[in-house]
Amino acid sequence: MPLKLNMKYLNGFIKDSDIFALENEITAAHNALHSQSGKGSEFTGWLDLPIDYDKIEFERIKVAARQIQKKCDVFISIGIGGSYLGAKAAIDFLKSSDYNSLKKDTPDIYFIGNGISADKFNNLISICEGKDVCINVISKSGTTTEPAIAFRIFKKIMEDKYGKEEASKRIYVTTDKETGTLKEIATREGYETFVVPDDIGGRYSVLTPVGLLAIAVSGVNIDELMSGAAKARETFFDPNLNDNDCYKYAAIRNLLYRCGKKVELLVSYDPDFSMMSEWFKQLFGESEGKENKGIFPASAIFSTDLHSLGQYIQDGERFLFETVVNIMKPNNDLIIDFDDYNLDGLNFVANKPISYVNQKAFEGTILAHCDGGVPNVVLEIPQKNAFELGYLIYFFEKACAISGYVLGVNPFDQPGVESYKKNMFALLDKPGFEDRKKALIEKFNV
Amino acid sequence: MPLKLNMKYLNGFIKDSDIFALENEITAAHNALHSQSGKGSEFTGWLDLPIDYDKIEFERIKVAARQIQKKCDVFISIGIGGSYLGAKAAIDFLKSSDYNSLKKDTPDIYFIGNGISADKFNNLISICEGKDVCINVISKSGTTTEPAIAFRIFKKIMEDKYGKEEASKRIYVTTDKETGTLKEIATREGYETFVVPDDIGGRYSVLTPVGLLAIAVSGVNIDELMSGAAKARETFFDPNLNDNDCYKYAAIRNLLYRCGKKVELLVSYDPDFSMMSEWFKQLFGESEGKENKGIFPASAIFSTDLHSLGQYIQDGERFLFETVVNIMKPNNDLIIDFDDYNLDGLNFVANKPISYVNQKAFEGTILAHCDGGVPNVVLEIPQKNAFELGYLIYFFEKACAISGYVLGVNPFDQPGVESYKKNMFALLDKPGFEDRKKALIEKFNV
Repeated sequence: MPLKLNMKYLNGFIKDSDIFALENEITAAHNALHSQSGKGSEFTGWLDLPIDYDKIEFERIKVAARQIQKKCDVFISIGIGGSYLGAKAAIDFLKSSDYNSLKKDTPDIYFIGNGISADKFNNLISICEGKDVCINVISKSGTTTEPAIAFRIFKKIMEDKYGKEEASKRIYVTTDKETGTLKEIATREGYETFVVPDDIGGRYSVLTPVGLLAIAVSGVNIDELMSGAAKARETFFDPNLNDNDCYKYAAIRNLLYRCGKKVELLVSYDPDFSMMSEWFKQLFGESEGKENKGIFPASAIFSTDLHSLGQYIQDGERFLFETVVNIMKPNNDLIIDFDDYNLDGLNFVANKPISYVNQKAFEGTILAHCDGGVPNVVLEIPQKNAFELGYLIYFFEKACAISGYVLGVNPFDQPGVESYKKNMFALLDKPGFEDRKKALIEKFNV
Repeated sequence: MPLKLNMKYLNGFIKDSDIFALENEITAAHNALHSQSGKGSEFTGWLDLPIDYDKIEFERIKVAARQIQKKCDVFISIGIGGSYLGAKAAIDFLKSSDYNSLKKDTPDIYFIGNGISADKFNNLISICEGKDVCINVISKSGTTTEPAIAFRIFKKIMEDKYGKEEASKRIYVTTDKETGTLKEIATREGYETFVVPDDIGGRYSVLTPVGLLAIAVSGVNIDELMSGAAKARETFFDPNLNDNDCYKYAAIRNLLYRCGKKVELLVSYDPDFSMMSEWFKQLFGESEGKENKGIFPASAIFSTDLHSLGQYIQDGERFLFETVVNIMKPNNDLIIDFDDYNLDGLNFVANKPISYVNQKAFEGTILAHCDGGVPNVVLEIPQKNAFELGYLIYFFEKACAISGYVLGVNPFDQPGVESYKKNMFALLDKPGFEDRKKALIEKFNV
């Protein structure tokens, strides 16, 4: 049994009939999405991706992953935004957020080029000393500043360490199939390349080669991941709101938003989910945050953040709702021992598995938060495996697309991301941005 | 030159005169805080802590830290909320968010007991195999569920591994000076103990033994940390709003909140700051989020999250403001090489340090976000060292207290945190919570 939507904790906030009042809007969104007549329809390749992907390239990814596992101690993934979050999120969720610290027969995996911190670069350079290294650089164009700087730095390190020829066998490139800076470099240097599809935007790209190579290197079964997504594609194809949990979630979000719930807190009781929350924040924030509207995506890991954001959630401004991803089972459980002295007073949970206590924390918390005026949506995930994750990823992707259409925006563009880039280029005196610099000087006296 | 408040990017949103209109409220808050006549005044021990702490215990912490550094490969800190966030934040900021992965002559440091994830427990148990381990358990009472479970588990592991006597030399306890479960256990087992002060709440406790032991184990100079806080105490003692950056920040926050800016996004361009943001979220969220009011604290690390939350910040709902902690200098910089071929088109930043590009990203972004309708407050931090961090911690603590008083709440209690605990105890059939369970059954049919 894969993911299940539990609407029980919306009781007292919204009624089923409120949700079904959005049925026409949901149907319109479904039709726009599936007939490719909606805004941004040129970026809906992710819809059929779970069954319609390049099978030969997919096998090539698995072969490359096995080679990388054999060849190196440290695997470096260079990318930003969707070229970083999906892979990191999947590895943390399926292997562990402590992946690099665990004993294992797969390489440590580091992500760089998702920012411009000099300390981060220097640390990774020192971590790589005395280790065998492989690299995957991921960029559609190759000109995005952050990964381009990282690749310039690490390409040189690899060539100094291994010589040009051996380095070229350790560098894997994921980029446009034909054009662009990175494609040119790859061709010139003879790197193995994988394709960033034209019709899938960054935040929807985790199940393309963008995410898959690093995920496979960590030892995850990417066939299972794709099967889960394919199953979700089938399940959530149903246009009837009543039978489609994915569409219900999209409807609920819009309804709560219209009631003034402007912040969605994505919650999990498993710290291995925390990068999935970051992936979610990009997916929904970048898809919906436009035209001065959209739900602000935030996240928390409980119970830890109950001792941080918990007070605010319970008693602060009432503009929050929570979406709780309840993972019903850990990979490995642990029984709490009985203690003869019971000085810590914990014997009331003795001989119980830790996961039982965690589930009771979940139940206790959700009742407390509902009581405090915070509506809760629950997504029940039976366990942490590649199939379930593929299913969840597709669930969120489709819910996001439908939700964005109901909101009335283009869920597939990101015009606002350009503003900082253009200003940064102007301030860095990049050729071609002279006018922008002039404008900034006039406006802000920089 | 320590921290400086830069108000330039509030231009066009609020005027200096708007800020000074809050002068009387700020003065009242100052008086309430310093005369101990405000709400929660029994928890203002942090105010004079930087000069008024137990110097003998402080030396004992340094001695213990040196012993721990010699005795173990892995140091485990058990605690939740303020007994976790401050130490983790300080270590990440001052040593590195990659601390455990770096080559070093201090132990790896892991934090547990801040949640109830079975996988997290099992991973840490496996990480400890074959390693020498020391533990610090931090809890005022010893009965908080999360750390109590963790301590029950790891106490047994230590005793099985080392025998009771040697284990007792490797376990350090930070708890109430006289009473409570944990104090009793410590006395019985002969553990070295440190004191959680009575007059300082969890979220204000990082500069007490609660935070200091782990921070010292990581190799940070805790004398410098205290000096920075002492300097800030002196600087921000001035009751005049015009001369007090800390009070100005408190005034600005309240002013923006009154203008409908209900979400504060704490931003940094340094990933080593990301746990400091979590510490900040507890400090402000738990202090202000009550009586159905308060600013919702969120955070982001740029430039990475410009490719995630960036779109929303630029174009989404206009209820955000940003507080940017601009760290002016990395610990170690790195020059971007010139490349003869320039295929990646990056030569416009060749021969420049990475930190220069990061600063231009900061400038470009802040101009873009102001343009998009998001007011920005900037806190300029000259560099990452213990003195500056101590200064910043005290700045935030005092700003939070003043800000909470201006908001009209008790910034030192957290009544809402009890709700989930009581429900959880009831659902776990803890003795004493039978009535609560009955109520939950009646109300929610659990």
